[in-house]
Amino acid sequence: MDRFSLPIARIGIIGGGQLGRMMAKAAKRIGCTCVVLDPQPGSPAAQIAGQQIVGHYHDPAKLRELADACDVLTFDIEDIGTETLVELEQEGHAIYPAPGVLALIQDKLTQKQALEAAGIPTAPFVPMPEPTPEAFAAFGYPLVQKARRGGYDGRGVSIIKRPEDFDRHLPVPSLVERFVPARKEVAVLVARGRDGDCRCYPPVEMCFRAGENVLDMLLAPAAIDDSEAEAARALAVRTVEALGGVGVFGVEMFLAEDGSLLVNEVAPRTHNSGHHTIEACVTDQFEQHLRAVVGLPLGSTDQLVPAAMINLLGAPGYRGRPVIRGMAEALAIPGVCVHLYGKATTSPFRKMGHVTVLDTDIEQAREKALRVRELIEITGEEQA
Amino acid sequence: MDRFSLPIARIGIIGGGQLGRMMAKAAKRIGCTCVVLDPQPGSPAAQIAGQQIVGHYHDPAKLRELADACDVLTFDIEDIGTETLVELEQEGHAIYPAPGVLALIQDKLTQKQALEAAGIPTAPFVPMPEPTPEAFAAFGYPLVQKARRGGYDGRGVSIIKRPEDFDRHLPVPSLVERFVPARKEVAVLVARGRDGDCRCYPPVEMCFRAGENVLDMLLAPAAIDDSEAEAARALAVRTVEALGGVGVFGVEMFLAEDGSLLVNEVAPRTHNSGHHTIEACVTDQFEQHLRAVVGLPLGSTDQLVPAAMINLLGAPGYRGRPVIRGMAEALAIPGVCVHLYGKATTSPFRKMGHVTVLDTDIEQAREKALRVRELIEITGEEQA
Repeated sequence: MDRFSLPIARIGIIGGGQLGRMMAKAAKRIGCTCVVLDPQPGSPAAQIAGQQIVGHYHDPAKLRELADACDVLTFDIEDIGTETLVELEQEGHAIYPAPGVLALIQDKLTQKQALEAAGIPTAPFVPMPEPTPEAFAAFGYPLVQKARRGGYDGRGVSIIKRPEDFDRHLPVPSLVERFVPARKEVAVLVARGRDGDCRCYPPVEMCFRAGENVLDMLLAPAAIDDSEAEAARALAVRTVEALGGVGVFGVEMFLAEDGSLLVNEVAPRTHNSGHHTIEACVTDQFEQHLRAVVGLPLGSTDQLVPAAMINLLGAPGYRGRPVIRGMAEALAIPGVCVHLYGKATTSPFRKMGHVTVLDTDIEQAREKALRVRELIEITGEEQA
Repeated sequence: MDRFSLPIARIGIIGGGQLGRMMAKAAKRIGCTCVVLDPQPGSPAAQIAGQQIVGHYHDPAKLRELADACDVLTFDIEDIGTETLVELEQEGHAIYPAPGVLALIQDKLTQKQALEAAGIPTAPFVPMPEPTPEAFAAFGYPLVQKARRGGYDGRGVSIIKRPEDFDRHLPVPSLVERFVPARKEVAVLVARGRDGDCRCYPPVEMCFRAGENVLDMLLAPAAIDDSEAEAARALAVRTVEALGGVGVFGVEMFLAEDGSLLVNEVAPRTHNSGHHTIEACVTDQFEQHLRAVVGLPLGSTDQLVPAAMINLLGAPGYRGRPVIRGMAEALAIPGVCVHLYGKATTSPFRKMGHVTVLDTDIEQAREKALRVRELIEITGEEQA
């Protein structure tokens, strides 16, 4: 019989954003404590965790201080210097996902190469250390350029459809891949335990605004055939197993017109496409991640009710103390669950919160989410 | 259109136990901040809230300090001196439920009298300022003696079936009421907004161990006829409206053999019988309470999936730092959601956490909950 003196584990979270915040809530629920490492005092995660080391994710001394204060380290961001983490792991600190896995994934070129080596279908690609018009032309249009490092939320990705788009290219070491005319983009969250046990959430559909790479709305479950959903789940599990990941991973995929699936990219962490799991699934992605990294059994990924999710972004033109309009009106709609992240200031397009809408009819959930997006606006007390 | 600078409201929570803890989580989610008043530093609620005034609920200076730091006051316990709260309310502080409602309810005699005056069916009763064998005999057996003040979790209640049971009586000002041979005990959570809007959760069934007054297991929804459930909801709403309550109230009832309902007692706060709402309902009781007291619209009370809930009590014979056994084994059961309260020390029968089990089949949920109760034991590092 298992036996723990409380706390079950002291968890160090590198990065104090909204993912860490929701993780810290789950951690306290299952009897763990948290320490957050983030440069911003009073970070969203630290507001729940109650303990923060103020410092940068790249600072070896701060990372070491965090490791010494905790039983296990994990992260809510990808852009972490992994050298220190590798050292800490070699010294015996538990770090999940493993620093080697993080390093592999955070470089989109090595990520793609690893997926290819494992036989995971992805869009054809070539490395492009120095983007030039000639190199783009040699690969052929339309193409997608991805910066090797530092991209997130659509940053670090540029769609180049023709030679004249070259002024939109990113002047950094990159890869280019074939543009995939996808029927839908889906994401599958996979949790993998320290013992290799894998659990998969039902695939969700990511809707993007035309011409933008930022997630516009998420529908869960995705409106795809059962056989496509089954194939997506199987591919996501194969992907995470191939990478040797421990924890929750977001696997983003293209569903092509012919029904085939290509892995677009992998996030080695809890994911925006899984926020609905808090209300809609038996075990939410944050508790699931912690169960995985602490070494507890994984929970049920069953979804209880359809959901639509939108992010609440800071309105352009504003900074400073956030001001929210329309929240009461939105809360009056049945099934609307508002999550605000406690960020002290807003800025244009900053993720300030999200809304999950539950409804037994997913089309109703989608319509309510559209209405919420019209109602809620987050501005600031200062002009940007 | 509504408009709030964040935070939406600064909420003062009198009492820093598990109810305050779960309330603080909900508060942060909807953009509120919390300050907790509790004599124990690092109380369960303060671990989430991050801000605590260390002091007693009866201390006028501390209550005033809390009121000055917050936009609205509420509480997670009933045993509060209401004199200061009445003064603060008169000075213009927002306090919900209103101090007058709390005062009325926390004295079980005035609570019963108010219910009777409002035509709410309850067991016949008489005041009993000084319990004596003669007074008990005059009322007749079997009877239930209830202390006017300070009872909770079965304390302050004694069932006296015959004259020889007099040694189990409580030597305090009381009421006695007719013992009701109930078919079931049910509870209905009611949320009532500042605008009078009322929402009711589906009735739940409270199962007690034979001979004890402590809740053993909760089943949601209760296995009762639809007409009985409808009657229970209507009676609960009438009860809270009669009391003029704002916030979430737990209304406990007896369902007699003949299908009639009697209100047993009312809790002017979020309630142990509503913990399953966190996972099983669209809007959980804690967010619902906060929406009510802040003046936001109430949310949907729909239940998405059946649930069984058990409390995790400190095992007899132990004190000190809590030690939990069997948690990993319990988490391996699909649908098991563990909530630990972060209490620094255990003691016999102290509420250390709870477990909600979700299952599409409530009988399965019940059986899993029984299994979890066998698996999980919370002892301590010291012998009691």
